[in-house]
Amino acid sequence: MAAPEIEKLIRLFGRLPGLGPRSSQRAVLALLKRRETLLAPLLQALEETARAARSCSRCGNLDTRDPCGLCTDPRREEHALLVVEAVEDLWAMERAGSFRGRYHVLGGTLSAADAVGPEELGIDRLLGRIATEKMEEVILALSATVDGQTTAHYLAERLRPLPVRVTRLGYGVPVGGELNYLDEGTLAAALRSRQPVG
Amino acid sequence: MAAPEIEKLIRLFGRLPGLGPRSSQRAVLALLKRRETLLAPLLQALEETARAARSCSRCGNLDTRDPCGLCTDPRREEHALLVVEAVEDLWAMERAGSFRGRYHVLGGTLSAADAVGPEELGIDRLLGRIATEKMEEVILALSATVDGQTTAHYLAERLRPLPVRVTRLGYGVPVGGELNYLDEGTLAAALRSRQPVG
Repeated sequence: MAAPEIEKLIRLFGRLPGLGPRSSQRAVLALLKRRETLLAPLLQALEETARAARSCSRCGNLDTRDPCGLCTDPRREEHALLVVEAVEDLWAMERAGSFRGRYHVLGGTLSAADAVGPEELGIDRLLGRIATEKMEEVILALSATVDGQTTAHYLAERLRPLPVRVTRLGYGVPVGGELNYLDEGTLAAALRSRQPVG
Repeated sequence: MAAPEIEKLIRLFGRLPGLGPRSSQRAVLALLKRRETLLAPLLQALEETARAARSCSRCGNLDTRDPCGLCTDPRREEHALLVVEAVEDLWAMERAGSFRGRYHVLGGTLSAADAVGPEELGIDRLLGRIATEKMEEVILALSATVDGQTTAHYLAERLRPLPVRVTRLGYGVPVGGELNYLDEGTLAAALRSRQPVG
């Protein structure tokens, strides 16, 4: 079919999440049709990122500096820590723009099925960090999945002896969400956390 | 949010067809999580393809040679020409594996709305090629869309004076369907039931 080099590139694109064989072929053809405006800049950005990107040794964020920009920003609250599962969750929280403290990326959830225990997630390191940096509040912003909630529960237990306020994200109707399309669990949680009006 | 280099990479990925802002972010994070097994090979394949890929000056296929492998393969029938809209359609036909002649990639369809006329598609060059290479059959393998069929009709009219049998793909191509997304069996069946035009 195509030359082996091009076939190989299509196969590699197909290993990215969300891209199948056809969509990776379309992506590669789009790149080859726009060499100057898309392929060349993408190649350069990929090289730069491959060279410069590193995990923050303090929080686990991805940045070009270590410690990362969020860990070293003096305008951020130093004694509030928001714990997330993954870097994409940290970025999602930053897009929301309402949290102005520090982050900690677990890098996953506890999972018996995948043999992920507290050591794999570096829970001891997290507890050490909370003590050293004198955190006053730890917000557990984990997914509302079975593994996410198991992990949150485990963390809450481990944090209980520490002099720190432990909270979790509120549950309820997503902003813009239509009641009709929400699952029973969300509706029940929203009802439990109902608020007085006016 | 992320470092400017990483943000830029995510933006560029988001310009590929089929990738939105969230999926390009996921793709970039997947790359950074698998630097050795995914990022490095992808970077290398992208560099190789950027350097080596070129359009075949004879048929318009993308390959690392010019003329391409299909144009120079001595085992292929020299006097049958299959005309497609785009490189992805040529690759789809090759996947079906039942056509063993030469190809011609138009690079689009006639479209009044987008001001694409016969000059933009190089129709004169195609007619010249058909005469020079003594084609005996021209198969119009255009999409069953309005623009595709308009183009096929126009080509059939232009080909009428030439001593060449003009056919189109047979029924089996679903109306409104794009060639690129059809399964191999349908493509093979459509090729078998091709019909004379005019």
